[in-house]
Amino acid sequence: MTGFGEFDLIRELLAPLSGEGAFGLTDDAAVLPKLKHGEAWTVTKDAMVEGVHFLPDSDASTLARKLLRVNLSDLASMGARPVGYFLSLSLSDRQGRAWLTAFCDGLALDQTEFAVALYGGDTTSTPGPLSLSLTAMGAVTRGAELRRNGARAGDTVCVSGPLGGAALGLRALTGALDPTGLPNAVRCYELPEPQIALGQALVGVATACADISDGLVADLGHIARQSGLGARISCKAIPVLPELADAMARDPSLAELPLNGGDDYELVFTLPPTVTPPPGATPIGTIVEGEGVEVLKDGRPLSLSEGGWRHF
Amino acid sequence: MTGFGEFDLIRELLAPLSGEGAFGLTDDAAVLPKLKHGEAWTVTKDAMVEGVHFLPDSDASTLARKLLRVNLSDLASMGARPVGYFLSLSLSDRQGRAWLTAFCDGLALDQTEFAVALYGGDTTSTPGPLSLSLTAMGAVTRGAELRRNGARAGDTVCVSGPLGGAALGLRALTGALDPTGLPNAVRCYELPEPQIALGQALVGVATACADISDGLVADLGHIARQSGLGARISCKAIPVLPELADAMARDPSLAELPLNGGDDYELVFTLPPTVTPPPGATPIGTIVEGEGVEVLKDGRPLSLSEGGWRHF
Repeated sequence: MTGFGEFDLIRELLAPLSGEGAFGLTDDAAVLPKLKHGEAWTVTKDAMVEGVHFLPDSDASTLARKLLRVNLSDLASMGARPVGYFLSLSLSDRQGRAWLTAFCDGLALDQTEFAVALYGGDTTSTPGPLSLSLTAMGAVTRGAELRRNGARAGDTVCVSGPLGGAALGLRALTGALDPTGLPNAVRCYELPEPQIALGQALVGVATACADISDGLVADLGHIARQSGLGARISCKAIPVLPELADAMARDPSLAELPLNGGDDYELVFTLPPTVTPPPGATPIGTIVEGEGVEVLKDGRPLSLSEGGWRHF
Repeated sequence: MTGFGEFDLIRELLAPLSGEGAFGLTDDAAVLPKLKHGEAWTVTKDAMVEGVHFLPDSDASTLARKLLRVNLSDLASMGARPVGYFLSLSLSDRQGRAWLTAFCDGLALDQTEFAVALYGGDTTSTPGPLSLSLTAMGAVTRGAELRRNGARAGDTVCVSGPLGGAALGLRALTGALDPTGLPNAVRCYELPEPQIALGQALVGVATACADISDGLVADLGHIARQSGLGARISCKAIPVLPELADAMARDPSLAELPLNGGDDYELVFTLPPTVTPPPGATPIGTIVEGEGVEVLKDGRPLSLSEGGWRHF
């Protein structure tokens, strides 16, 4: 980092990304902008560690965008309008000026795409792996935020898009599978699409909502448990990428990926039975009395080897 | 971590620390409480990495409190009333249940002391050093927050308490100095006192304010630069702990510690010349035309070997 220190990084690369109230990143803290009457701030914080959440030597721009997007996905699941974020970078000696420039270029791209700005954070060195932490903030109508605990028996369970693609993409990136013919799966893993517009459209409509980061069964399980109920879903109803459908036809062990692959960042949500699922969403099952998530394959309950990704 | 996983940690140790709007840490994001009319959220985010910001095998409870306090110090420097915080823990395999219990006990102690609650965050594993990141949130009267850029020529420069003690304490803890007779210095390093009450009392009174984390000269330098001015301070006027005064008498090289030792977490602020410094605060100099921070010793400008702690 010779000749390019902490204050250079802040002034040259980060300050241009900063929003009003961030004071050009020159002060001890930021002051958040004023919300509309009746709105509240919703806030989430997710960290990503090299070798745990992303592969060593990942492309810096893509990594920056994924870090932002996994946090925006949490805001989407609350039905929020994203506003801004705070960033902590713990940099090893392998992240120099070129890496930081690419990282900030990635942030700039997604700031435009998702209409958010940087409000603050800090940068430190680390003798360990590159570690990133982001706090994202959005606005919701107070009291109308999408929670996990509102599902009712008889509600329809829906997902916003194909699942398991990111887990397939990760297998391709790590060499466990031949990456040829899997560009969409790789893209699912590297650059998830937070369902911001859908989340906002579900406010006042969905009874419960979560984003799928740990895997469908785990995250739908959170909705079921928080709602004091169970869920029953049909394997066959779960949408998958054509690339994954092809791969599953060749290797049946991949059939678990849509259930517990994780890193999907689609939304899973519940609708009263009288409500038609919004365009693009797919009904995959029903909220039922009882507990847990029952997965039916050919009409019979399926046994899962694990409940989704968990850390330690 | 056998038998004590991520979800156990959240449910058993973190959820009891959570505030209203955090939904018991069971949802994707928190909703922040409503502020009073005319208030705004002020937010700061600081990370701490083992071996960089704290010594390996630091006491878990004390570490938790320091992490919270260094962030609360940033809120104090804005004149804010602290409300809550988000926490990211990246844990190595050396942090087990006992460590986590002690860590959360420390948080609980300081939550009571500073009237704040936990609103969310995440826990991950890391193959590297223990890494902590905290986002703290407080309330300020919108437009009245204490900035760094409001100092005027002729303003009095004040500090809120003795400086250099933390840097002396760190030398004792690392074995560079004999720790005998340095309990207060060690305490300064391990458990700084964020100047919350003073910060709020300075709203509408001080023209500029910053907390001293990088060292007095560096942080007063930020105020001077952001205000487009310079500062002139007197070495002799800077308050120091009796322990540091004794140590400086034995080893003159320690005379730099009050100037650029860092980790003090006292406030440096500027007052119009007509305003009397508040109780406990010490005037140490004046804001002047020009730029930079001039340190006078026995009436003559002093040359500094470095401008304070910087990362990489």
